[in-house]
Amino acid sequence: MLTDKERTLLNGKNFVHLATVNPDGSPQVSPVWVGVEDDFILINTEQGRAKARNVARDPRVALSVYDQNDPYDSASLRGQVVEITENGARDHIDKLSQKYLGKLYPWHGEGERRVIIKIRKVEPKH
Amino acid sequence: MLTDKERTLLNGKNFVHLATVNPDGSPQVSPVWVGVEDDFILINTEQGRAKARNVARDPRVALSVYDQNDPYDSASLRGQVVEITENGARDHIDKLSQKYLGKLYPWHGEGERRVIIKIRKVEPKH
Repeated sequence: MLTDKERTLLNGKNFVHLATVNPDGSPQVSPVWVGVEDDFILINTEQGRAKARNVARDPRVALSVYDQNDPYDSASLRGQVVEITENGARDHIDKLSQKYLGKLYPWHGEGERRVIIKIRKVEPKH
Repeated sequence: MLTDKERTLLNGKNFVHLATVNPDGSPQVSPVWVGVEDDFILINTEQGRAKARNVARDPRVALSVYDQNDPYDSASLRGQVVEITENGARDHIDKLSQKYLGKLYPWHGEGERRVIIKIRKVEPKH
């Protein structure tokens, strides 16, 4: 389960830095918009991007997020990609765009194949 | 070589999200202060932290940084840890603290063992 703090940070207008694993085992990280639905963390990207290819091969990810207005209020967590789907992905990027830009996604391209990457939080080991 | 854009972002009062590889091959990511010296990217952490242990075992890292005032101005890059040293690390965290907080590092602890993680940018493959 996401903690209240994690949920607040993820629901805020904050960027997540999503880390994935490259084919050679090295890490890859990039900033992304994020949404939370039920207890899942939802990212939206395009088919063919490094992060999309990486999570299709290795579902293990890590996320780091901080409050845009207070970088010392932050959370880092591990996640497992449980679904990668094109279903609803175009509507979903519009929804994220409303959250971050206050308007529909302005960069839709022809032949664009958006995907939703659905992530379940992996509880830390104790 | 760091590009001008990367150098500007790293020299700015911006956080870097540093991704490393855990022992099981999964990614780990957390926000850190950063400095640039010559053409190296310098992070400062404590011995024993996950990122310190990870880079001692696997020197491959990835970094992502954006302009705190414009998150859409960002850079993501790969790096190779070329040195991990306690030499000068206490002074270095004070220097980073001056950059980010405008004062000496306020959280020095007794028996604290700070380390500098020195990173060389890995040029993207073409």
